Amino acid sequence: MSRAYRKFDSRTKGVGGDWLAQTTFEEISAADFFYRNRDIAGFTNPSRAIFAAIRELVENSLDAAESLKIPPDIYVRLSYEGEASSETQIYKLRVEDNGIGIQPRHIPSAFGQVLFGSKYKRKQQRGTFGLGGKMAILYGQITTHQPATVTSSTGTAKIYSYRLMIDIQKNRPLIVDRKVLINKEQWRGTLVEFTLEGDYLRAMPKILDYFKQTAMVNPYANLTFVDPKGRLYRFTRVTKEMPTPPKETLPHPYGVDVELLQRLIQVTPYNNMLEFLRNHFHRVGEITASKFLEFSSLSPSKNPKRLSHEEIVRLMHMLKKFKDFLPPDASCLSPLGEELLKAGIVKELKPEFVVVHQRKPATYAGHPFIVEAGIAYGGEIPKRDSFLIYRFANRIPLLYDEASDVSVKVITAMNWRRYRVSPDMPIAILVHICSTKVPYKTVGKEFIADRLEVRREIANALREVARRIQHFMSKREHVDRERKRLGVFSKYLPKIAQFSMQLAGKKKLPDIEKLLVSVKKYGAEET
Amino acid sequence: MSRAYRKFDSRTKGVGGDWLAQTTFEEISAADFFYRNRDIAGFTNPSRAIFAAIRELVENSLDAAESLKIPPDIYVRLSYEGEASSETQIYKLRVEDNGIGIQPRHIPSAFGQVLFGSKYKRKQQRGTFGLGGKMAILYGQITTHQPATVTSSTGTAKIYSYRLMIDIQKNRPLIVDRKVLINKEQWRGTLVEFTLEGDYLRAMPKILDYFKQTAMVNPYANLTFVDPKGRLYRFTRVTKEMPTPPKETLPHPYGVDVELLQRLIQVTPYNNMLEFLRNHFHRVGEITASKFLEFSSLSPSKNPKRLSHEEIVRLMHMLKKFKDFLPPDASCLSPLGEELLKAGIVKELKPEFVVVHQRKPATYAGHPFIVEAGIAYGGEIPKRDSFLIYRFANRIPLLYDEASDVSVKVITAMNWRRYRVSPDMPIAILVHICSTKVPYKTVGKEFIADRLEVRREIANALREVARRIQHFMSKREHVDRERKRLGVFSKYLPKIAQFSMQLAGKKKLPDIEKLLVSVKKYGAEET
Repeated sequence: MSRAYRKFDSRTKGVGGDWLAQTTFEEISAADFFYRNRDIAGFTNPSRAIFAAIRELVENSLDAAESLKIPPDIYVRLSYEGEASSETQIYKLRVEDNGIGIQPRHIPSAFGQVLFGSKYKRKQQRGTFGLGGKMAILYGQITTHQPATVTSSTGTAKIYSYRLMIDIQKNRPLIVDRKVLINKEQWRGTLVEFTLEGDYLRAMPKILDYFKQTAMVNPYANLTFVDPKGRLYRFTRVTKEMPTPPKETLPHPYGVDVELLQRLIQVTPYNNMLEFLRNHFHRVGEITASKFLEFSSLSPSKNPKRLSHEEIVRLMHMLKKFKDFLPPDASCLSPLGEELLKAGIVKELKPEFVVVHQRKPATYAGHPFIVEAGIAYGGEIPKRDSFLIYRFANRIPLLYDEASDVSVKVITAMNWRRYRVSPDMPIAILVHICSTKVPYKTVGKEFIADRLEVRREIANALREVARRIQHFMSKREHVDRERKRLGVFSKYLPKIAQFSMQLAGKKKLPDIEKLLVSVKKYGAEET
Repeated sequence: MSRAYRKFDSRTKGVGGDWLAQTTFEEISAADFFYRNRDIAGFTNPSRAIFAAIRELVENSLDAAESLKIPPDIYVRLSYEGEASSETQIYKLRVEDNGIGIQPRHIPSAFGQVLFGSKYKRKQQRGTFGLGGKMAILYGQITTHQPATVTSSTGTAKIYSYRLMIDIQKNRPLIVDRKVLINKEQWRGTLVEFTLEGDYLRAMPKILDYFKQTAMVNPYANLTFVDPKGRLYRFTRVTKEMPTPPKETLPHPYGVDVELLQRLIQVTPYNNMLEFLRNHFHRVGEITASKFLEFSSLSPSKNPKRLSHEEIVRLMHMLKKFKDFLPPDASCLSPLGEELLKAGIVKELKPEFVVVHQRKPATYAGHPFIVEAGIAYGGEIPKRDSFLIYRFANRIPLLYDEASDVSVKVITAMNWRRYRVSPDMPIAILVHICSTKVPYKTVGKEFIADRLEVRREIANALREVARRIQHFMSKREHVDRERKRLGVFSKYLPKIAQFSMQLAGKKKLPDIEKLLVSVKKYGAEET
């Protein structure tokens, strides 16, 4: 306090008068960092902020329900509270789910402390930074200075309700009020309510798009959104079939770095390399571990805690060089699946033709991932100057900053002409990446970084669907040509027949059907 | 430790076997956050990582020299140390400057602790996150596990040299070794040296571009780069004239939020609103403060520390609504200036014609900023399918993720046809934004967020230069047309004269010069 006081005091004598003297250093909290740099978390302007707040809370809710394998029921209400400025309004946002709930002792930190959370796991989930919910509440606080209310129950006899704010400088929750209620109806879930400044009118199209696309890839979820005008948007589940919840997984040996090796060595209960490898790495069994140790001339009985710095660095490089590790297991990932992907596209876009493809699991920096892609053509897809692109990551739609996304880069770089496809055709391209860790480029999860391995998988998936589209296109071209050719025959043959009949003075037209069939190359009805 | 141990122990009984039981929460350090999410700091792949490491350290060095108003002398050497994988190598990076130096007690944290730094100031500087240098060292550490060496002196009798690593989980520096040397030659500056894995061959074009463009907007700096092949790139200063170092400034009333007001109230030594406003806000003097207090019906003698929550929120809204605050003072900003901007463009691009424009200072979220723009046409600018775009922020070139940048969005959205300009013309567009806080979208400072106020200023600056380019273009068109018209006259008039002479049987050609002059509308030599 006294330091800060002095800082301001010196300023009153002349703004920045002492800048030449020496560099002053200070430490800021993680909450303070994101408060100062909210752009990197997606809270750039009043319109983005309201979009980001809704999506962050909806994604937390989806994760919370899925982790229990319960079909999510999510209720979102945004209500108008008053004017803030000429361009912005104050809104109250309320998001309620039927998810796993939060243990009462964790509620304050889970919503009032940045970099505290349940998302720091090697597991496919929507949230990854443990930041979104807090940023929403932090943004609400700095624009309206009202506490947020978080009510939750894990289905026990009690419901806990906290009113809290964030001490941004200390990065700690401030509990304003706490209530314990009797849980008569065995409610389980979480309800978050807070006020924030925003611009709903400008955000509206993106928000509705977000719900629509989220419903498309989460067909087992009920989503309800009530907007400030009281309009109700309902996205009802079409199935109660839930995907298998993704499991937490061990790191894959191809992706470890020195820091991770050190952390594992620090905590391992095993005192020999064989057990160490077998127990801390994904898909490394006894045989693979033995082979690897031979390959890297390490004794199986060596104690990992005795490895020197140099040996750890060498171990990392050897792990990357060894060719016989099994690829990561898909069981820790929960892709959409070709069927669901196709169904989603057909339902949403009503195309004439659709192809989808799911790649085998791959890995980048030790994180397994799967790319799924689809191309749809014609039907109700509009003609535009460019392809219609849908991007998804771990079942969430990505709607902003498309141009920098790795998928878009791959799509732009591809030679589509080779596949008889051009951007002015009515074509939609969909890419879904699921991973235990999606390499987002921004904390706001707007787009995916250009990681080599990811780019390669996307390109391969797109080439596969492009080849199939090409097959469809060339078949269609043939069929078109044939239809035209047959059209010519069927137009003139009857006339020639008529003419020949008259010329020959016959009364009966010759049968031209046989002739027509004989010139037919393909079944034109095959389309 | 025992908690982490238990976590791994439970896994050995069956991977993720207890995931259903309950959600586990954990807290991670800021260093751990950026270690896990290095994509958001620009360290996405081995090529980007090496680019990011160089630029972060160069920018720290430029800031360090400029804050003393010393023409920067920066020496960068990247040397090959060995193979890492089939696609990457180990390099040693060494960056030395003649800047202000770091006090010995701050060296370990300044390079070994994330969110500790000298950059958290309301001041125009290249670094803003206090993160870049540490990320570079952290990246080196996790790929090569070698300590970094930081040697520095503030020009005193001693030079301090630390070998250090980062304890990522605790976010604290680990000092491996510390030396104190006698500073015989009164050296002042900082030298950072560490090893990292990277892909220089792929990064090379961007790195060279980076140095070239940095030299273009920092013409008072000497930059030397020695690449792994031993090739020397020198960018020599063309002037010793330094821009006035930017000063630290107070927040502008239009951009405060509730959090900032609270922080000011907490530390203020003033016990009445009049003094509070006068002393803590940019360009608020006694008269403006009094007018504002009247406007918002607040008593000048009210103690700011006695403001209720509701009153603070109201104060924030009133500050935004009051129309009579002066615009931010440009003195805290250090734009390039039209002359330097023009000189830079001419030197770099050698165009036929160039127009530049500097906007008046504006503000977003309380941060003053200035937009400068330039358009260059013809000369050595290549013809392409699209405009050549140069982006700068606080005198640093932005080279990645162009497509998502606000400037590019504005350029794309503009109706260039109106200005007789089209993307297939040889045209380069340059935008420079300088601010006490550039709203970067990523921690890697790749591109600028789409803030409404920033977008508006960029659009206005571009419209201004576009109008002037239009004037030039239409004048050029006129001149062209005129030249053609005159060409026709001067081609046929002599023939007509000749023919008339022969027809009339005269010996002497009539003087057609007068005629030619009389049909001349503009001076064609005016170009």
